[in-house]
Amino acid sequence: MSEFETTLPSTRQVQTLIVEKTEVELKLVTDDLLVGKIRWQDDYCICLNDHYDQPTIVWRQAIVYLKPKP
Amino acid sequence: MSEFETTLPSTRQVQTLIVEKTEVELKLVTDDLLVGKIRWQDDYCICLNDHYDQPTIVWRQAIVYLKPKP
Amino acid sequence: MSEFETTLPSTRQVQTLIVEKTEVELKLVTDDLLVGKIRWQDDYCICLNDHYDQPTIVWRQAIVYLKPKP
Amino acid sequence: MSEFETTLPSTRQVQTLIVEKTEVELKLVTDDLLVGKIRWQDDYCICLNDHYDQPTIVWRQAIVYLKPKP
Amino acid sequence: MSEFETTLPSTRQVQTLIVEKTEVELKLVTDDLLVGKIRWQDDYCICLNDHYDQPTIVWRQAIVYLKPKP
Amino acid sequence: MSEFETTLPSTRQVQTLIVEKTEVELKLVTDDLLVGKIRWQDDYCICLNDHYDQPTIVWRQAIVYLKPKP
Repeated sequence: MSEFETTLPSTRQVQTLIVEKTEVELKLVTDDLLVGKIRWQDDYCICLNDHYDQPTIVWRQAIVYLKPKP
Repeated sequence: MSEFETTLPSTRQVQTLIVEKTEVELKLVTDDLLVGKIRWQDDYCICLNDHYDQPTIVWRQAIVYLKPKP
Repeated sequence: MSEFETTLPSTRQVQTLIVEKTEVELKLVTDDLLVGKIRWQDDYCICLNDHYDQPTIVWRQAIVYLKPKP
Repeated sequence: MSEFETTLPSTRQVQTLIVEKTEVELKLVTDDLLVGKIRWQDDYCICLNDHYDQPTIVWRQAIVYLKPKP
Repeated sequence: MSEFETTLPSTRQVQTLIVEKTEVELKLVTDDLLVGKIRWQDDYCICLNDHYDQPTIVWRQAIVYLKPKP
Repeated sequence: MSEFETTLPSTRQVQTLIVEKTEVELKLVTDDLLVGKIRWQDDYCICLNDHYDQPTIVWRQAIVYLKPKP
């Protein structure tokens, strides 16, 4: 992952959410709201696992916002 | 935040809104209207805290407009 | 504003609209139609003030068209 | 207009439509369908004049298709 | 068409569809479904001719999918 | 496919789905949900074959998420 800018606050926050296995809400341009835990991120995608541990690979271009569950 | 262009008017205005803790409205491509105070910004995202101080990480690509509350 | 390409027709037209304080309609991807006077522009945004002189910072990515009021 | 790629087929076709003052339909991402004659184009925008010769500056990012009226 | 990447599978497939005059369906972000034969492509656009041989210049940014008619 | 970044997790996962002929769901910005098996990917597109083995060339820009069928 050579060019992946890991020093940016947003990237680091996502990294923290991965490590701490925080449940998040991911709002998408289609108005879908996915709920789950982030497993990995790269330049183009964020992978979210749902309650059944099934992965969904979300394209970053389609993300509107990310909200850690309080 | 090496490549972040902090000299642009729009970036500086957001920076001022952060420092002055101004309440803002953020209109998104999904037609959602978020209300809160901006906590930080980077190349890809703007983080908005709501009235309960819960953060929402908004992707810049999804922002339509930003309006400081008068 | 080092990289801002001020020689392009579209940029110069917006610049003229700023100087002449022309009222414009700004159609956005959310189908919103903002009306006001453009105050400034940069690489990412166009700032529009409404009739009460309240600013709205519009992201360029969300602009569909701009129409000077005849 | 230094970097504007005038050798591309799409750019040249638009240029021909400008010169021949062909009436066109411009479909936009908001589902709006503008009708008029193209007056100029640059890297970011295409300017369309309607039947009353009023200009509308359309951002390229918002264009879905262009159809010359037969 | 100097920078046009003609070695990519997707570009070559479109090129084949042009040469073989295959009828295709083109789904757009506005949910429009255009039907016709592709006449040319460049970096920004794909030109589709309908049953009356009328051209529609479609911006690539607005394309969702392309489906050759079986 | 010189510039295609094959070392990224998302690209490799798609590559695995191609090799293992896994059935996937592909959610698009138009809210369409395509079901099928991925046949190839390049910089701009992902090709999905449906149950009748008919190909659909999907533009990456239009992808919201990808979900392997469990």
